[in-house]
Amino acid sequence: MSYGQYGGGYAPPTGAPPGYGGGGGYGAGGQPGGFAPRRAAGPPPGVDPQLWNWFAAVDSDGSGQISAHELQKALINGDWTPFDLDTVKMLMTIFDVDRSGSIGYNEFAGLWKYVKDWQNVYRHFDRDRSGTIDVRELRDALTQFGYNLSPRLLDLIERKYDIRQGAAGHGPANGITFDRFVRACVAVKQLTESFQRLDADRDGWVQLNYEQFMSTVLTAP
Amino acid sequence: MSYGQYGGGYAPPTGAPPGYGGGGGYGAGGQPGGFAPRRAAGPPPGVDPQLWNWFAAVDSDGSGQISAHELQKALINGDWTPFDLDTVKMLMTIFDVDRSGSIGYNEFAGLWKYVKDWQNVYRHFDRDRSGTIDVRELRDALTQFGYNLSPRLLDLIERKYDIRQGAAGHGPANGITFDRFVRACVAVKQLTESFQRLDADRDGWVQLNYEQFMSTVLTAP
Repeated sequence: MSYGQYGGGYAPPTGAPPGYGGGGGYGAGGQPGGFAPRRAAGPPPGVDPQLWNWFAAVDSDGSGQISAHELQKALINGDWTPFDLDTVKMLMTIFDVDRSGSIGYNEFAGLWKYVKDWQNVYRHFDRDRSGTIDVRELRDALTQFGYNLSPRLLDLIERKYDIRQGAAGHGPANGITFDRFVRACVAVKQLTESFQRLDADRDGWVQLNYEQFMSTVLTAP
Repeated sequence: MSYGQYGGGYAPPTGAPPGYGGGGGYGAGGQPGGFAPRRAAGPPPGVDPQLWNWFAAVDSDGSGQISAHELQKALINGDWTPFDLDTVKMLMTIFDVDRSGSIGYNEFAGLWKYVKDWQNVYRHFDRDRSGTIDVRELRDALTQFGYNLSPRLLDLIERKYDIRQGAAGHGPANGITFDRFVRACVAVKQLTESFQRLDADRDGWVQLNYEQFMSTVLTAP
């Protein structure tokens, strides 16, 4: 089969991708991305103190709910650039499970674990410790997640998500920052699953009308 | 036919969409987006002075070429937010025609006209003068450009490009800023044209393998 091994052990958006050893062996390294710490008051009783500290730190107006705006202010890449709006929207779509428009403590617990797991994944695949992911590191990551993509597709993904600002595929590559790496991986997963659903007879081909084609593309992050 | 009237008079990325009256009738209004002016020296002889002034203003290091970084610093929305990296990359892909990685004076002339024309389009369709485009204004614009999209597709486009940061389709819509509006229109155009090319017999259906499906999606802005 020429595309991703369906269900090959790669699990986002509900958790971090398994399938790599994780944990020890590659040191602390730089912070690939995540939450910018802020001061917070002490935790209430009965709650994981570290997690509550993070929640309170991100909930800068102390409302007990994290707004999308508070989330975006808290989320930074390892190079201190903010997360793209499209990545913040993707995270809200995944974790605002009660569709309240904001993130409560329990939703935050899921979001926090997700970002932390992705940080470990990112650090693991950033083998040259450059702080960004290049096309070879991207290929290694997607292969590990079960996607055996052609060199052409890998090149297109790298062009789309690299922070290089020149014309697509021209000028030196700058690499893929943390938030764009997560978005790229989620997009590949979601598009592959959409294709899989449409390919009911598993022959590697789908038949689509315009409405189906456009809605499949527009729902990807 | 259920999708866009192929070639129905809508012309980006090589120019602004025709098909609306343009010009007078809707006042100056706010600046929907475009270049943030900077100080510049006088123009050399034989060159459109206004355009040269803009070029020199954006070319902040005076190298005679506009880098992607200089372009991004110069491009702002009407609410003073910067253009998304993905919009800057899209503009570089369209206008860095010699693939030098930067924008020369002649390339800038095309880019400048393009942004200016889109500003007029944006101002025209922002009928309530809110400074952003809502879903009804988006529908009017795309219909004018020849795309008769279903309410569901319009809703998906609005969710994807609206700057609302909550979960997709939840929380109050904030509207679509200038740079995201341009990107949305270019994406609809490019995806519709891709579908058209694949639909060789014009029956409204395409057959795609995974490679074709993914590459079509990944080349859209």
